[in-house]
Amino acid sequence: MSTHSTLRVGILVFDGVEELDAVGPWEVLASWARDSPLHPDVLTFSADGGGVRCAKGLSIVPDTSAADVGPLTVLVHPGGRGTRSLVVHEAHLAWVRAMRARTPLMTSVCTGALVYAAAGLLAGRPATTHHSQLDALVTADPSVLVDAEARFVDDGDVITSAGVCAGIDMALHLVARLESADAARRVARDIEHAGTSRH
Amino acid sequence: MSTHSTLRVGILVFDGVEELDAVGPWEVLASWARDSPLHPDVLTFSADGGGVRCAKGLSIVPDTSAADVGPLTVLVHPGGRGTRSLVVHEAHLAWVRAMRARTPLMTSVCTGALVYAAAGLLAGRPATTHHSQLDALVTADPSVLVDAEARFVDDGDVITSAGVCAGIDMALHLVARLESADAARRVARDIEHAGTSRH
Repeated sequence: MSTHSTLRVGILVFDGVEELDAVGPWEVLASWARDSPLHPDVLTFSADGGGVRCAKGLSIVPDTSAADVGPLTVLVHPGGRGTRSLVVHEAHLAWVRAMRARTPLMTSVCTGALVYAAAGLLAGRPATTHHSQLDALVTADPSVLVDAEARFVDDGDVITSAGVCAGIDMALHLVARLESADAARRVARDIEHAGTSRH
Repeated sequence: MSTHSTLRVGILVFDGVEELDAVGPWEVLASWARDSPLHPDVLTFSADGGGVRCAKGLSIVPDTSAADVGPLTVLVHPGGRGTRSLVVHEAHLAWVRAMRARTPLMTSVCTGALVYAAAGLLAGRPATTHHSQLDALVTADPSVLVDAEARFVDDGDVITSAGVCAGIDMALHLVARLESADAARRVARDIEHAGTSRH
């Protein structure tokens, strides 16, 4: 890309990423980007830019690679069974720490939070993850203040969300934070998010 | 594939398919398939088996082609801006009619209903679509009994759902119909569908 928006959201995909963890936020954020006066760029990327096979078997080809994705305003790190290897993958954890140093807002969906915890990003912070992995989050970092109730936890420069569908809620919250509550309501209505009126 | 399950769900993808229209039901149905004693097969397919570029720009590579997908118990026809050409694509409409003749349960998400209407599947039947396309549904077939309120309309051998996120609700209903309400609740809880308890 020759030009970059000043508002850039990157969604990481990897082998074993849970399909809806990535595509739910993508749908929300790409719907927002289409109509927003802020002209955000929303991109998918994998470590090497190659296609990935998701947790349930869907194949996705991302826009670009980690090396070429450029500076991001927001990183979205989904979860899925692929995180089981990422939490012990030193190069990936080092990359997450490097992203933390240069990315204003780090967000996760589902077990993406376990990767953030393993990388040390959640030390002493409130956070959440998939309901079946709350204990694993404490094990990964006992200083995490686990929120077992929230759909997502906004701790300023880190937002973690609960499992799978909760990533859609978190992404709508991102639209509200990055633009406005009105913009988030427009997107929610457009994608017929549960609870929105059809009229 | 050398063997087929007796319960087979095929999710059609095409250029311009709305991402979440396809991936929401996929997430639900593939999560169900993983644990169900009925061992359903859940597959994605495109007309020619090649990759597709979705409405918001995501690239998906499906499992197979329409020619090779084999007999289905359920077809899921998503919507998206790609349906604007499908509703006037005679070969596609003929394929939809042929699928209708041999597929026990035809389902649609969002503007997939406009394709079904154009193919004549919804004549005299209750149906719904994306809230912005309810008038278009009547235009496509004035005999359709449009339901402007429902998240999805189950008319026995045809189920149509409202926009985008409503496809997730419809897919959970499918799990309840094809297996049991308990199975649908398990999937809803596993993917943290809104309204499910985290405990």
